[in-house]
Amino acid sequence: MKFSLSCELGYQVKDQASFVLNIQPSQLPQQRILRESLVLTPDVPHETYVMPESGNRYVRFQAAAGEVKIAYDAEVELDVQLDDPATVPEIPTEQLPFPTLPHLYPSRYCQADRLPRAAQSDFGQLEPGHGRVTAICNWIHEQIEYKRGTSDEHTSAADTLIDRAGVCRDFAHLGIALCRALGIPARFVSCYAWRLDPPDFHAVFEAYLGGRWYLFDSTRQAALDGLVRIGIGRDASEVAFTTIQGEVEPTIMQVRIEPLTPLAHAYEPTVLAVTTSTS
Amino acid sequence: MKFSLSCELGYQVKDQASFVLNIQPSQLPQQRILRESLVLTPDVPHETYVMPESGNRYVRFQAAAGEVKIAYDAEVELDVQLDDPATVPEIPTEQLPFPTLPHLYPSRYCQADRLPRAAQSDFGQLEPGHGRVTAICNWIHEQIEYKRGTSDEHTSAADTLIDRAGVCRDFAHLGIALCRALGIPARFVSCYAWRLDPPDFHAVFEAYLGGRWYLFDSTRQAALDGLVRIGIGRDASEVAFTTIQGEVEPTIMQVRIEPLTPLAHAYEPTVLAVTTSTS
Amino acid sequence: MKFSLSCELGYQVKDQASFVLNIQPSQLPQQRILRESLVLTPDVPHETYVMPESGNRYVRFQAAAGEVKIAYDAEVELDVQLDDPATVPEIPTEQLPFPTLPHLYPSRYCQADRLPRAAQSDFGQLEPGHGRVTAICNWIHEQIEYKRGTSDEHTSAADTLIDRAGVCRDFAHLGIALCRALGIPARFVSCYAWRLDPPDFHAVFEAYLGGRWYLFDSTRQAALDGLVRIGIGRDASEVAFTTIQGEVEPTIMQVRIEPLTPLAHAYEPTVLAVTTSTS
Amino acid sequence: MKFSLSCELGYQVKDQASFVLNIQPSQLPQQRILRESLVLTPDVPHETYVMPESGNRYVRFQAAAGEVKIAYDAEVELDVQLDDPATVPEIPTEQLPFPTLPHLYPSRYCQADRLPRAAQSDFGQLEPGHGRVTAICNWIHEQIEYKRGTSDEHTSAADTLIDRAGVCRDFAHLGIALCRALGIPARFVSCYAWRLDPPDFHAVFEAYLGGRWYLFDSTRQAALDGLVRIGIGRDASEVAFTTIQGEVEPTIMQVRIEPLTPLAHAYEPTVLAVTTSTS
Repeated sequence: MKFSLSCELGYQVKDQASFVLNIQPSQLPQQRILRESLVLTPDVPHETYVMPESGNRYVRFQAAAGEVKIAYDAEVELDVQLDDPATVPEIPTEQLPFPTLPHLYPSRYCQADRLPRAAQSDFGQLEPGHGRVTAICNWIHEQIEYKRGTSDEHTSAADTLIDRAGVCRDFAHLGIALCRALGIPARFVSCYAWRLDPPDFHAVFEAYLGGRWYLFDSTRQAALDGLVRIGIGRDASEVAFTTIQGEVEPTIMQVRIEPLTPLAHAYEPTVLAVTTSTS
Repeated sequence: MKFSLSCELGYQVKDQASFVLNIQPSQLPQQRILRESLVLTPDVPHETYVMPESGNRYVRFQAAAGEVKIAYDAEVELDVQLDDPATVPEIPTEQLPFPTLPHLYPSRYCQADRLPRAAQSDFGQLEPGHGRVTAICNWIHEQIEYKRGTSDEHTSAADTLIDRAGVCRDFAHLGIALCRALGIPARFVSCYAWRLDPPDFHAVFEAYLGGRWYLFDSTRQAALDGLVRIGIGRDASEVAFTTIQGEVEPTIMQVRIEPLTPLAHAYEPTVLAVTTSTS
Repeated sequence: MKFSLSCELGYQVKDQASFVLNIQPSQLPQQRILRESLVLTPDVPHETYVMPESGNRYVRFQAAAGEVKIAYDAEVELDVQLDDPATVPEIPTEQLPFPTLPHLYPSRYCQADRLPRAAQSDFGQLEPGHGRVTAICNWIHEQIEYKRGTSDEHTSAADTLIDRAGVCRDFAHLGIALCRALGIPARFVSCYAWRLDPPDFHAVFEAYLGGRWYLFDSTRQAALDGLVRIGIGRDASEVAFTTIQGEVEPTIMQVRIEPLTPLAHAYEPTVLAVTTSTS
Repeated sequence: MKFSLSCELGYQVKDQASFVLNIQPSQLPQQRILRESLVLTPDVPHETYVMPESGNRYVRFQAAAGEVKIAYDAEVELDVQLDDPATVPEIPTEQLPFPTLPHLYPSRYCQADRLPRAAQSDFGQLEPGHGRVTAICNWIHEQIEYKRGTSDEHTSAADTLIDRAGVCRDFAHLGIALCRALGIPARFVSCYAWRLDPPDFHAVFEAYLGGRWYLFDSTRQAALDGLVRIGIGRDASEVAFTTIQGEVEPTIMQVRIEPLTPLAHAYEPTVLAVTTSTS
């Protein structure tokens, strides 16, 4: 499937500011950038960096006082693999590949170290596998109210478990924390999400099952086979779309994604296991 | 029913220490002290105080360096009222007596302000009344592991909801917090508890239902009709058995209670609503 | 000194709502209500209550769908006692009157149980007395940024100590928590505050020193001798101006206070110890 | 300088357990393993792994019921670079190398996102550079009580800032969190520490200054030029010495390190900046 996507961000910089962006999709075997363009206005010099352990792509630049505009536009081809959930097992902790182990660790917003009893109590008796992570997502979808303004950038999975409200990043954090507490590696994914309404950046998570990273979205707001990955990380602390030093006022924020080819599958998490990763 | 009860506490005081005790049962219409004796060794002067709003009884004294022993012994007559739970309703918030309103407020260890969504989500659909509070207790009993060493004096209901482990005070705090979040006044009760094994002070809670304060013990470790109340408070912060200023080493701690008359009823929370309060 | 004060609150009630108000000044020997009027529109029946242990005054009523307006207006005479701070000592814990002891307990927003080391480390070496509480207030004034939007109704003193930002209630909570951690009884005071700009309800705290409750305002936004007390409590959880059950939309919120007689003293906390309480 | 070091760990495994160890020093240009031996008893097969992004070395094995013993022994040559602190500057955030940026992110135990105001307020006015991080360490050393039993594996920097007590990992976490909040990349270091008394594994932190990672130990319990690094990570969550799945009882825990050559420099953090990293 091919997607056309873009984002436009604008800021009024007061004196001077430093920007780090992570808005470009990762280049992966299953996710190929066919064409892309990044235009900074004014046309300031910028550095780029691809983090080896994640594939996340960064752009950094300094801006003087005045208006700054960032316009990114790309065409991406995505190979989505759809598996039968019943065939996707959990991997016993002692057999997990070493590189997945850090995704069992607790992180800033996913305090898995505090959740083993809760995870066991609520999901421990379920059959291990893709379906168990779907059960976690179903629970989150039912129990957590999706509501803007109920959480902020400091909100963690432990908070969300108590307060029972949040937005996509909170839903992802809670899913990740519960998975890790059960011994399932899980990581945060920032993305462009087709069908998200209103259009915006989105956050979902991946769990490591059956030797691949499978996608999960407990908000159920986007199509799992219409997600173009930007960044992966332990949690939201590692995949900020923008990190800005200096006083700025946001002026524009537009995100867009649409399929260039018809999508074969709608999002039905209980019947489809979706992955775009090879390892 | 009549109970004989006693406690003996000993401390090695390093230099000097100030003690406030709240170990004597309250004097209530339904709970009458037939006889009591408090012996301090050495025989230091002490002040006593009954807090008007709670009926809690305090003893205060200073001790010099050396061994201090507190021996309390009493005979108490208790009138337990047993009601059919099905006949005990919740009272709509707007009709609650004013003096019960403070027991809707969040307190140090019962952050009811953060739990309305969780309480609604888990218990909101149940029929209001004594049975709903019993359902909360059943949930706590099933979900929270009773385990010494998993919590400390700073542990709150929000912590327990995440960590899913604790002791009697934690069980009581979580029950109180969930009740308040549903609009049911609830308060902490410290007590002597018949059948608690090993014998110790105990903590349960009361919820205000049908015009009275009904007893609940989600640990299910003691008989509800064998509880002799020492103190009531918003939570454990208000009913410490001992508050000690100065460096001391505990040396003795013995608590005992036994019925002097056979008890009529065993503890079956789903069939009996137990109260010892008139208002 | 005499003050004229008023507040007007308006709400659009969706279906039906229950209101509990605590907006009327307490009647105290040093604070006398010369005249007052409370008008509810529509003119619904209401209950009133004075809580014995606090003197807080409550009004409760139900409102049907539609606009509700609450107009309160009063004239209050205040006897402010001004003492030389150097003459106002702390009282050793073991000599504190029993009724002040609950104001040493930790409460929802004032986790004094966690702060003894911080309080000792930062203020333990200072000379006990009124000046030490002023030092706490000075530290709060310097270290905590007064900024709307940095805290919410769940924010506690422990949060404020970390985040270093908040509004008047957060400033009061932190002062209370630090006092209690040092063994000084402290309580929350909601009030009308002359010279507060923009006019609003205000929150300060009182510490029990030298046998009286002395006023402290670490925001330094109001005159201590121009505070008309509404409620006292362990913290903000106990003195909400309004507690509303049901869906409402606030439409009006106006608070006003002005002296009818010239004030003798400006607010200079380091030279004046201000109290309006006898016990 | 050469060091001889060893550790011996023993466990009684109940049924079966899976072990991941991170007890071997990293192999670095400045830290060369001259000789090492790892003996597992019984002699079970084990996997090894070196994490590319950290250099951390892992050993994994399964053990059946019974006694398990891990004996590690090594000789390590360390090139310590000692710089004049006055010559070691901070690097403006916008000039930091990209690979250091993740060490600005908040992590599980280092909630730097909540500390910018506290860090600015307490250390913002100090001259940037190595001396400012030393000032942070001095503050921690003075304000935080080093006391076993005051913290546990869930304790974070925010907790330590409130509770003012902890052990080496808590001291490191608070230092890391404050550095990150000031824009200084900082990471956790687990190590063998010469002169630590009693001997044990130790935890310190590194801050990225002047283009290198400089060592800091706010406990002041070990010599900075006598630290042999085992692992680096965002915080303690990433460098557990042992991660064990299954029920085990620890039976042996012995750690030892001693210099084979006389050490040139004692630990004087205010006059020496110590680094063992090239990048």
